Amino acid sequence: MYMAKVIGSVVSTQKDPSLVGKKLMIVQPIDSNKNPIRSEEIAADSVNAGIGEYVLIVKGAGARKADAKNKDNNRVRDVNDCSIVGIIDRFDK
Amino acid sequence: MYMAKVIGSVVSTQKDPSLVGKKLMIVQPIDSNKNPIRSEEIAADSVNAGIGEYVLIVKGAGARKADAKNKDNNRVRDVNDCSIVGIIDRFDK
Amino acid sequence: MYMAKVIGSVVSTQKDPSLVGKKLMIVQPIDSNKNPIRSEEIAADSVNAGIGEYVLIVKGAGARKADAKNKDNNRVRDVNDCSIVGIIDRFDK
Amino acid sequence: MYMAKVIGSVVSTQKDPSLVGKKLMIVQPIDSNKNPIRSEEIAADSVNAGIGEYVLIVKGAGARKADAKNKDNNRVRDVNDCSIVGIIDRFDK
Amino acid sequence: MYMAKVIGSVVSTQKDPSLVGKKLMIVQPIDSNKNPIRSEEIAADSVNAGIGEYVLIVKGAGARKADAKNKDNNRVRDVNDCSIVGIIDRFDK
Repeated sequence: MYMAKVIGSVVSTQKDPSLVGKKLMIVQPIDSNKNPIRSEEIAADSVNAGIGEYVLIVKGAGARKADAKNKDNNRVRDVNDCSIVGIIDRFDK
Repeated sequence: MYMAKVIGSVVSTQKDPSLVGKKLMIVQPIDSNKNPIRSEEIAADSVNAGIGEYVLIVKGAGARKADAKNKDNNRVRDVNDCSIVGIIDRFDK
Repeated sequence: MYMAKVIGSVVSTQKDPSLVGKKLMIVQPIDSNKNPIRSEEIAADSVNAGIGEYVLIVKGAGARKADAKNKDNNRVRDVNDCSIVGIIDRFDK
Repeated sequence: MYMAKVIGSVVSTQKDPSLVGKKLMIVQPIDSNKNPIRSEEIAADSVNAGIGEYVLIVKGAGARKADAKNKDNNRVRDVNDCSIVGIIDRFDK
Repeated sequence: MYMAKVIGSVVSTQKDPSLVGKKLMIVQPIDSNKNPIRSEEIAADSVNAGIGEYVLIVKGAGARKADAKNKDNNRVRDVNDCSIVGIIDRFDK
């Protein structure tokens, strides 16, 4: 997982059916000092994160398991490979 | 997922059978200001994206689930690890 | 796997149910001379690593197998993609 | 997927049984202008690519599906995580 | 896959049960001129590689299939995501 800041979203009408209804947020990866690292990514939001919030990002197969309403995630066709899985309240160092 | 601009395509006659009939697009990853980041990739197009369009890219196992006509994607032998899964209409920031 | 130093933790109240009860540590990847490399990540702790300790990090599907109490890990919905799987006692070179 | 140029091969006698009989090519990733990007990788050749040819590379689980003779790839123990899956005839931009 | 040089090992007493008995080697990724690239990784040795030898490295799920004695690797809980799968005798360019 890594830390990121939500900085916006993208609008896409023509997309894979498995992405319909998902909020696709633009996230900027950060370090624990809130400084930007690497490049922006697009993450599907599963925790109602708002613009400006600091979040936890998961990539790969784990990202497809982030929809808690769906009990049997492995059987659902889902192209998503990046999800917001938590809102960071505090960095303890 | 990440953002990219479609800048061309590659022609390949001698290739894995699972890639036959797929449009293999050259995509340049971008940030939300449409500036290029990292290096170009080759992505299979599943949403009819044209040259110059901004798109969403998925990598890994998720990319093999992007063919919506195929209901049981996990059972199809498919080498693809990178797909265009959406056309970006707008960046909201 | 790679080497990292545990430098802190994050607190997240609103998060994926599969992350509840997990210690989410901020880890700084290092080389075998203990110099920092790349950027910080967030790893779920499965070996009771403390702040300042040098640890082994696993990413991807392997990270979801790090909970030894759970015998049938593949069937548990778990979004985690990064785990601390060992405490490094010594670097032999 | 990404583009690469085949620049050589490695000889390995002592190796995982699943790699025996595979041609292990040294490939240099390139962009669509044929300029080198990143560092060299080792890819198993599944399309009879020769030294100097431009090829398509797949990584991860997809690479293990590149052996077309094997119908039920998922059941074969195979450590390979990088395959040449196509020879690029032309870059259209 | 990529090329690396074995430069040491790490000792870890407190670790995931699936890593017990595995030799955890410090490897420095290299290019085909034996120059170092990127940062060091930790790889489980499955081919008895010694310090100073040039080896082939596999990452991800493929790394968990590198234990040839285990016929049904997919069913064994194993956190490892990086294995040495071959010793390089010669670079042909």
